[in-house]
Amino acid sequence: MNVLWNQDIVARDQVNIDIEDRGYQYGDGIYEVIRVYGGQCYMLAEHMERLTTSAKKIKLALPYEPQRIAANLQKLIAIEGIDNGEIYLQITRGVFSPRNHQFPDPGTVQPVLTANAIPFERPTEMQQRGLNATVIPDQRWLHCDIKSLSLLGNLLSLDEAIEKGFDDALLQRDGFFTEASASNLWFVLEGKLYTHPDGPLVLPGITKIKVRELCGELGLSLQEEAVSITRLKDVQECFLTNSVWEIIPIVSVDGQLIGNGERGPITTLLQQAYIAAI
Amino acid sequence: MNVLWNQDIVARDQVNIDIEDRGYQYGDGIYEVIRVYGGQCYMLAEHMERLTTSAKKIKLALPYEPQRIAANLQKLIAIEGIDNGEIYLQITRGVFSPRNHQFPDPGTVQPVLTANAIPFERPTEMQQRGLNATVIPDQRWLHCDIKSLSLLGNLLSLDEAIEKGFDDALLQRDGFFTEASASNLWFVLEGKLYTHPDGPLVLPGITKIKVRELCGELGLSLQEEAVSITRLKDVQECFLTNSVWEIIPIVSVDGQLIGNGERGPITTLLQQAYIAAI
Repeated sequence: MNVLWNQDIVARDQVNIDIEDRGYQYGDGIYEVIRVYGGQCYMLAEHMERLTTSAKKIKLALPYEPQRIAANLQKLIAIEGIDNGEIYLQITRGVFSPRNHQFPDPGTVQPVLTANAIPFERPTEMQQRGLNATVIPDQRWLHCDIKSLSLLGNLLSLDEAIEKGFDDALLQRDGFFTEASASNLWFVLEGKLYTHPDGPLVLPGITKIKVRELCGELGLSLQEEAVSITRLKDVQECFLTNSVWEIIPIVSVDGQLIGNGERGPITTLLQQAYIAAI
Repeated sequence: MNVLWNQDIVARDQVNIDIEDRGYQYGDGIYEVIRVYGGQCYMLAEHMERLTTSAKKIKLALPYEPQRIAANLQKLIAIEGIDNGEIYLQITRGVFSPRNHQFPDPGTVQPVLTANAIPFERPTEMQQRGLNATVIPDQRWLHCDIKSLSLLGNLLSLDEAIEKGFDDALLQRDGFFTEASASNLWFVLEGKLYTHPDGPLVLPGITKIKVRELCGELGLSLQEEAVSITRLKDVQECFLTNSVWEIIPIVSVDGQLIGNGERGPITTLLQQAYIAAI
């Protein structure tokens, strides 16, 4: 397996991450997961834009122009012969010694970029069958709009759901749904779509951008507004979105069926439209 | 420089961290910073106990017995010839591929331990002069009791303070002080000491354990209770504690002097007692 290491595509075992890479010591870095269809990165410009925004929010000076990074990612999937798959890309602030919480002066540290690509096929069975979820408190930080490497809060949320016997967690903060443990979250209520508005409590999803567009094209009414957990009993459909899985129905929450416990018509319509748009 | 890598003491450049180490991709790991005085680790048993607790809270199975880790740290500082200094120790969940948010089964992944030691002398000038701080919202997650590698929230807090022209941030959540950006926080009000009680909002500091003991010995009244930011004008003394810096006065907050803007008598008494107890 070859990986992208800064600007070079090298064998995986040639890459050497330093013990004082701030990504390793602090989760001080950002990342993107990009879907590949037919040997092409999907919505790559949007991913590069979000990467740039995340970088700005943590004052990380990107080591290369986003266009250059994008071209190197395309080169990586070509060399790896990836047809359908996913790319994982991360950029850390780089190596700084001695360890110090303060962000080092950008001139004194060189960010470290690594990316790898693996084959991945659409999870059609999960897209049809859906997932069973549980509601748990959102215990993450208040910078969820930054796609950062400090992800232990997300991991603990997923683990809590799995321990309780569910597939994923629907996170609620102050009585309102924010997102799932690693996906944006959507509801259908009285025939209308709802999702949490962008802001510090949720990640501005790339798939969310596309679903927002599709709602417009399909004439679906979309309200970007937080949904109260007290409205769960009225929810007709629920689904999550992320770049890798696309659109996945949530068919039950804490053992209560959503609708009749099967993928609903609006979810299905959006799934079909999403795939058609690729 | 030699470092501890799992159970071996090796030259720093021999250590090779994998790009799919979950510490690197997720901040999925824990750490300790341990002070060294006269070639001996200080309060090492307490650090190992907290490490064990942090590990349990993120379901990381420690790769070695704490006593074994402690012995290896002592060996490291002997080999490195550290008299006064500090040790940085971290343990990540290990390498797992392909990347997956779900905690891997402990049997399928080997945690990665790294530690290094550097000389460090007591910052006497800072201990006397103190720091100027600013109050900012605590935007970190709700698992601050875990000494985890997902630290970007702490880094952003410190950076915000520095950007505003201050030395450190006093974090407040819902109108109550929690801690500083990387230290426990203490106040003197009407002659009585206050600090936030242990719990999910603050780190259970090792220096806090010692200062708690010293309060008992010195007959100082200590209330482990969160202090409202509205009481700031009544604060007679303020200081922070951490293992590396020991006890550091906060002499002003957002430009308002604490007391007369100099290290106060209770702070000085505790500093002297802390040093005497080592």
